[in-house]
Amino acid sequence: MAHIPVPANIPGIVGPMMAYPETAKPMNALAEVLLCKESPTFSKADRELVASYVSFLNQCIFCSESHGAVADHHAKKPNWARQVWDNPEKAGVSERTRALLAIAAKVQKDARTVTAEDMNKARSLGATDHDLHDTVLIAAAFCMFNRYVDGLGTMAPPRQSPAYLEMGAMLAERGYIRAIPENA
Amino acid sequence: MAHIPVPANIPGIVGPMMAYPETAKPMNALAEVLLCKESPTFSKADRELVASYVSFLNQCIFCSESHGAVADHHAKKPNWARQVWDNPEKAGVSERTRALLAIAAKVQKDARTVTAEDMNKARSLGATDHDLHDTVLIAAAFCMFNRYVDGLGTMAPPRQSPAYLEMGAMLAERGYIRAIPENA
Repeated sequence: MAHIPVPANIPGIVGPMMAYPETAKPMNALAEVLLCKESPTFSKADRELVASYVSFLNQCIFCSESHGAVADHHAKKPNWARQVWDNPEKAGVSERTRALLAIAAKVQKDARTVTAEDMNKARSLGATDHDLHDTVLIAAAFCMFNRYVDGLGTMAPPRQSPAYLEMGAMLAERGYIRAIPENA
Repeated sequence: MAHIPVPANIPGIVGPMMAYPETAKPMNALAEVLLCKESPTFSKADRELVASYVSFLNQCIFCSESHGAVADHHAKKPNWARQVWDNPEKAGVSERTRALLAIAAKVQKDARTVTAEDMNKARSLGATDHDLHDTVLIAAAFCMFNRYVDGLGTMAPPRQSPAYLEMGAMLAERGYIRAIPENA
């Protein structure tokens, strides 16, 4: 049971977002801008991959599983995100994406350790300044979402539960602005 | 110099927010809802105190100094926030506020460690469920803002610089929606 009253049997961030729509609205608006933009050098699949990887590093079951499922859905590769979490070097992602994941991991642990060299490496592989901005902010934002979910003690279905596949498909296709019933 | 191009000589989060208004808008909307609400059991001063304390724990100079200055301005007590960062037990804050700061510190470090007992202690001292929600989300949101500021390598005036007093007064009086020139 969550630490504060939220709608019953609603997993993860959805319960607090339904109960507190005034903060849910800007949080979902932020997720929409960061995650639902397809660009030539930073795809929706890669954006969700960064989100799920940071959530995995924060050991947030709900966010890593749900956004991993969104990444898999966009990439049309079952279990792709999970392979990346285990070893970004071996999971068949591009060198550019690996450079962005490395920046995201630094932001998750201690953002002050990101260097100009980290940024220049990603740039040399084709990342734009906008991609670098979005990578840092996706990683930072999931340090918020993960803490909101776990700090309130919300319920999460077990890892690899089929519920996440449904969430992943729904979020990939509808986005975040309409993800919470209050905002539907 | 920041890791990506941002307006020159603009400190902290303001530069990236001016350069990327599409994400600045929901971030400022979230800050406004969380920090600019005066309630009988969770004042604006206490909300900013939580924000500055989490930023101090994340060693984010810009956010701890600027939000510490907002807290001091609301509380009409110079250097109040700084005394709390050094030792919340000795800084003349109420037992309820100390219980909220303790929850915020757990959210900052590892949100999964927040317990029902932590929440019940704050409740027994008068905190409402809404206050508990807002405490967790303020702490979580500053784990985002701090990482955005430091992951992009933005410039911060030195600690205790007079620039922060000006920022503190401005933010306390105008709020966040109008804090960034793009949104003015």
